[in-house]
Amino acid sequence: MSTVKLFLTDVDGCLTDGGMYYSADGEVIKRFCVYDGMGMVLLKKAGIPCGIITSEDTVLIRKRAQKLKIDFLYLNAGSQLRGGISKKQAAERICNQLGITLEDVCYIGDDLNDLDLLRAVGHPCCPPNARRDVLSIPGIRILDTPGGQGAIREAADLILQGIIPEQELISLS
Amino acid sequence: MSTVKLFLTDVDGCLTDGGMYYSADGEVIKRFCVYDGMGMVLLKKAGIPCGIITSEDTVLIRKRAQKLKIDFLYLNAGSQLRGGISKKQAAERICNQLGITLEDVCYIGDDLNDLDLLRAVGHPCCPPNARRDVLSIPGIRILDTPGGQGAIREAADLILQGIIPEQELISLS
Amino acid sequence: MSTVKLFLTDVDGCLTDGGMYYSADGEVIKRFCVYDGMGMVLLKKAGIPCGIITSEDTVLIRKRAQKLKIDFLYLNAGSQLRGGISKKQAAERICNQLGITLEDVCYIGDDLNDLDLLRAVGHPCCPPNARRDVLSIPGIRILDTPGGQGAIREAADLILQGIIPEQELISLS
Amino acid sequence: MSTVKLFLTDVDGCLTDGGMYYSADGEVIKRFCVYDGMGMVLLKKAGIPCGIITSEDTVLIRKRAQKLKIDFLYLNAGSQLRGGISKKQAAERICNQLGITLEDVCYIGDDLNDLDLLRAVGHPCCPPNARRDVLSIPGIRILDTPGGQGAIREAADLILQGIIPEQELISLS
Repeated sequence: MSTVKLFLTDVDGCLTDGGMYYSADGEVIKRFCVYDGMGMVLLKKAGIPCGIITSEDTVLIRKRAQKLKIDFLYLNAGSQLRGGISKKQAAERICNQLGITLEDVCYIGDDLNDLDLLRAVGHPCCPPNARRDVLSIPGIRILDTPGGQGAIREAADLILQGIIPEQELISLS
Repeated sequence: MSTVKLFLTDVDGCLTDGGMYYSADGEVIKRFCVYDGMGMVLLKKAGIPCGIITSEDTVLIRKRAQKLKIDFLYLNAGSQLRGGISKKQAAERICNQLGITLEDVCYIGDDLNDLDLLRAVGHPCCPPNARRDVLSIPGIRILDTPGGQGAIREAADLILQGIIPEQELISLS
Repeated sequence: MSTVKLFLTDVDGCLTDGGMYYSADGEVIKRFCVYDGMGMVLLKKAGIPCGIITSEDTVLIRKRAQKLKIDFLYLNAGSQLRGGISKKQAAERICNQLGITLEDVCYIGDDLNDLDLLRAVGHPCCPPNARRDVLSIPGIRILDTPGGQGAIREAADLILQGIIPEQELISLS
Repeated sequence: MSTVKLFLTDVDGCLTDGGMYYSADGEVIKRFCVYDGMGMVLLKKAGIPCGIITSEDTVLIRKRAQKLKIDFLYLNAGSQLRGGISKKQAAERICNQLGITLEDVCYIGDDLNDLDLLRAVGHPCCPPNARRDVLSIPGIRILDTPGGQGAIREAADLILQGIIPEQELISLS
């Protein structure tokens, strides 16, 4: 995947294990993974911008994106219910901004509203916990690591493999 | 399960993995699963109303039901300790309202206070983590997915299989 | 285990999986399991009092004990560091109050400060995640279910097996 | 590992399973393990000081360190991004203070920013969930227990094995 120019990922089931922690105030907590954070740091340091595309719109996702210094954050995408644009349309807007095409994109998704974008990008990936329709997309790379346990880091390692020597990776961290 | 006209589920152990997160304020958090949420969205879009029947009564369950736009929410059912009606009685009231019978219902439960309803409905299901007495109900469908990891989504997929073509499912999501 | 007259359990690693959730306010959350709650309800209904013995002293444990309507709650036991009495001494005080002996007690523990009590009771049990010194106590019953996933319920089922017919169990729940 | 004179560990992925719980306030919760707490208590009682070295700087880590009565707490180490010193430099400062060398140190780490210290200490360890570059350090001890489930306790048991008789261990707890 040495030709990836943009890294995009879904949130629930990819950056998390799909768990949504509810209190009396509604959804209050998501559990992210430290390895994914380091994966995005390494990608950005290697010159590959990173983005999150999600159908949700919560302050907690903004906070996580802010901590990771994410380059692009698209909320409400892929949810016809909430009147958002599709995830494919969201990714196309980012590509236009960068002067690249969907062929240059690695996207990680796991459910029905990720299908349009996964089928359009050059480097589609999913965690092993993805839904059946996602797992059966022709040419999709099924990662070994489940969502929320480092799936994004595994994809980042695959992208960076052979691009950056290890010593430099360490100095980036 | 193409003849299901109403989908009902228990909360603890079915919509969750049975975990109850306590703070100094008592129980404060439950962990739900994004895949189950999508499952209920798909069922409702396919014209199958969804309901939750639980022996608990907490604001956090009301919040999750509200987010999922659940059609029916029955609290305090199946708890003789709290003086509620049984879960079977709760389901019968919903059926009367819809002009259907328990034979048309798919119900997912996992413990002793689910036994009366599971034995009465036409389509009883349980997650693999259900208690022994539930697992041994004649004709019950034991799902592959544990509670809190998408058991409700698996049941929804089984119900919708063959009813709605995939392309339409995607447009529903 | 049909002769058990008192059921006692440790908290961390038995009623939980050993996880301690910290925020900026210190430890704020523990994750309990709905199946254990039902197990204690059934034991109490069958006339077997239930108690918790822990080396901790937090409001959240008091809240969980209150929800479960626990008969005995002994805090700060088994922690020489905090100047408490040993867990064995705590259990003896409860036995004296009930007019029974440690031979009549089922106790579930998992770590070094549970050793004295586990070696003294008639029915010692531990979850499979217990520490090595606990697992090797002669005659201890190693449960199949890990702490926090229903270990206490498994022990309760073993105690109640053959004592109460299923139909009555259901009416108790 | 009977010659260990100082025990040091990383936080995320070692004292935790790598999970970072985010709310609208940013990262709010980490999940620690009761067995690790007991492991550090035993080490300290056996005269082996314990320290935490992390690239993060949050109040919740200070709270956990305070509860464990940790001897050394080094924040912001190993993060060039935040301008901190390396983890190796942090450990060297502690060694100087104690009049020992890195050869006397057992350190547990799991990711790229732990590599320099793991390669320098006499007793490098990592949990099985460590990243590939860590797992392949020559002579590193790969623990059986994953981070957040008692990896630190397993290392503590290995260090104490043969040093302190069990009876004394119990009285220490």
